[in-house]
Amino acid sequence: MQAREYVSNLMKDSGLTVSVDQFGNIIGRMRSVSEGLPAVMCGSHIDTVPNGGPLDGAYGVLSGIEAARTIHEQTMPIKSPLEVVAFTEEEGVRFPSFIGSLGLTGALRRQDAYALKDDNDVTFERALKDAGLNPAELQTLHRKPGEIKAYVELHIEQGPELDRERIPIGIVKSIVGLGDLKVELEGIASHAGTTPMPLRHDALLGASRVIVGVNDLACRKRHTVSTVGSLTVSPNASNVIPGKVALTVDFRDPTWSGLQQLRNDIVRETKRVGKEMRLKVRIEKKSLTKPARMSGTVINAIKSSARSLGVVNKEMNSGAGHDCQNMARITDVGMIFVPSVRGVSHVPNEWTRPEHLEAGANVLLNTLLLLLN
Amino acid sequence: MQAREYVSNLMKDSGLTVSVDQFGNIIGRMRSVSEGLPAVMCGSHIDTVPNGGPLDGAYGVLSGIEAARTIHEQTMPIKSPLEVVAFTEEEGVRFPSFIGSLGLTGALRRQDAYALKDDNDVTFERALKDAGLNPAELQTLHRKPGEIKAYVELHIEQGPELDRERIPIGIVKSIVGLGDLKVELEGIASHAGTTPMPLRHDALLGASRVIVGVNDLACRKRHTVSTVGSLTVSPNASNVIPGKVALTVDFRDPTWSGLQQLRNDIVRETKRVGKEMRLKVRIEKKSLTKPARMSGTVINAIKSSARSLGVVNKEMNSGAGHDCQNMARITDVGMIFVPSVRGVSHVPNEWTRPEHLEAGANVLLNTLLLLLN
Repeated sequence: MQAREYVSNLMKDSGLTVSVDQFGNIIGRMRSVSEGLPAVMCGSHIDTVPNGGPLDGAYGVLSGIEAARTIHEQTMPIKSPLEVVAFTEEEGVRFPSFIGSLGLTGALRRQDAYALKDDNDVTFERALKDAGLNPAELQTLHRKPGEIKAYVELHIEQGPELDRERIPIGIVKSIVGLGDLKVELEGIASHAGTTPMPLRHDALLGASRVIVGVNDLACRKRHTVSTVGSLTVSPNASNVIPGKVALTVDFRDPTWSGLQQLRNDIVRETKRVGKEMRLKVRIEKKSLTKPARMSGTVINAIKSSARSLGVVNKEMNSGAGHDCQNMARITDVGMIFVPSVRGVSHVPNEWTRPEHLEAGANVLLNTLLLLLN
Repeated sequence: MQAREYVSNLMKDSGLTVSVDQFGNIIGRMRSVSEGLPAVMCGSHIDTVPNGGPLDGAYGVLSGIEAARTIHEQTMPIKSPLEVVAFTEEEGVRFPSFIGSLGLTGALRRQDAYALKDDNDVTFERALKDAGLNPAELQTLHRKPGEIKAYVELHIEQGPELDRERIPIGIVKSIVGLGDLKVELEGIASHAGTTPMPLRHDALLGASRVIVGVNDLACRKRHTVSTVGSLTVSPNASNVIPGKVALTVDFRDPTWSGLQQLRNDIVRETKRVGKEMRLKVRIEKKSLTKPARMSGTVINAIKSSARSLGVVNKEMNSGAGHDCQNMARITDVGMIFVPSVRGVSHVPNEWTRPEHLEAGANVLLNTLLLLLN
């Protein structure tokens, strides 16, 4: 709540009128010469993962406010209204991710959002009240297609590409689609000494073949990734052949058809290994999130801005999810990335060189000016 | 203590004179016509794993007593004295495994055994006292080579071979040697979405290749086994590339040279995968236990007995460890196996058909009679 107040005050000092919508999103709005036109919006989120770093989210919000402050202080004329947003619960630490941007774009209804519960069974509605917000007094601000001209989000890359290639600005083409599976392989636990190799039903050996296979599938295509990040073995004793293994598969692809194909390939490979290794296979298909294409208009505005500032840049995909992917449902969107030192994020030493932070903020300002006028 | 008293009483009822040695081993001795000759010994253990079954160990002890009872009741003359032993702490549940047989054969000294501690820091000496045994009053019974003519152990197979092949009696040739390694693979934990496949240092992918490689090594030789039974992943989150994996390798081979070769091959393969996958590899080489060869004399006695009883039998190796492997240090040894239904042991439904239990006990009796006279 201290951070929210700090951001609200910064917004007010920067010529923005602050409101909080029914999902807790903080929105600062700057009036334009043609108030009736759709607004140009920028922003990100200020919540973080536990033990996270200083930049993920907050950098985009503060740079948006700084852009507004510059426009305000230099009394630059803008045709469209400007809005800077700090979205609620992007990370999904307490409630599910993206409540703010899903709510603002109408993908999550107010009553559904309010019924969401945290691990202690506190509803989102109760949490808003406990934080001193009165849902009854909050603005209803479902935004419809046409109400917003464009949305631009400045964010750290959270990956190693820009840092390795020493390029200060990434222009996102697509936020990759994401899928996840829960896989359970069941064999037969038995004595590691007395069970001959040909008679085994070793669930961990099967899981290992699945992991190698899933990795090979992702390596075939340039922008595809897949990861088995979590795995548990049962009974997990050194002298017992594993009877059961549960694992997760996280897979991502920048195209919708590629994502669906990848899921089918992973499921087929897992079943093939299970059959070959005489294991029972249970696969829980969790939801697929569609990739979000950035708009050509916004990409071009970012590119022109970077060029006019003489900043080297490259087009790339975002492997991580962002509020921007939800905004893509109702408006033209674009994302600007700056390098993450050693590709590291969600840790206290998540960092970006000051000159890159500055370059990102300047590209954002110039992009907004192009879109606003 | 109730079980020990029950066994002691059974021994006394069967014409055996009972003593307890300084390691807690219960030994029942039957006098012979030539008391000066080395004794023929049989037996096993009566301790079990938690939640174990009724047969592992106890079957061998009770069958030995039953053989003694038969000899006693039928007043069969025996040249050598007969001893039936119930060894202490075979399973290693509270203290390290094989205290009884290591102690009796002199491989574990009294003062070293007494200093061993359980998880609550209770020494083995204290545990003997708490169980009502007074170490000062217990017999000193380190046995030296020459004091015992032969040792025969009847035991359930604990594996699937006899049950699958429908053979009632297995004659053990060798108790396989056993080695174990602790392996730690360290990569770099990073974001599952933003880290391209070629830039990853995925510790779980590396571990999977190690598991497949270790399995392939064991499959090359008929009587070799290797098992990765325990594996833990860190940080073990579905959207984070695993940074660290710890795993165990249990490997067994019936020959000493084969066991050493296998260890070298596993270590080489693990290092090769680590290098290829750009992972740091730490391998902790724990001790190797030498294989124990059964004696030709005892094997032939078992074979003759089975043949005279018309019982189908086969020679095989024991993949599990037994007290017999320690007895092999000081005397000629042999083991008789009976089938474990579905190869299952160390669980409550560990089972052997009554007719197979009977066949095993009869083969034991006949083998003892051959060796005693």
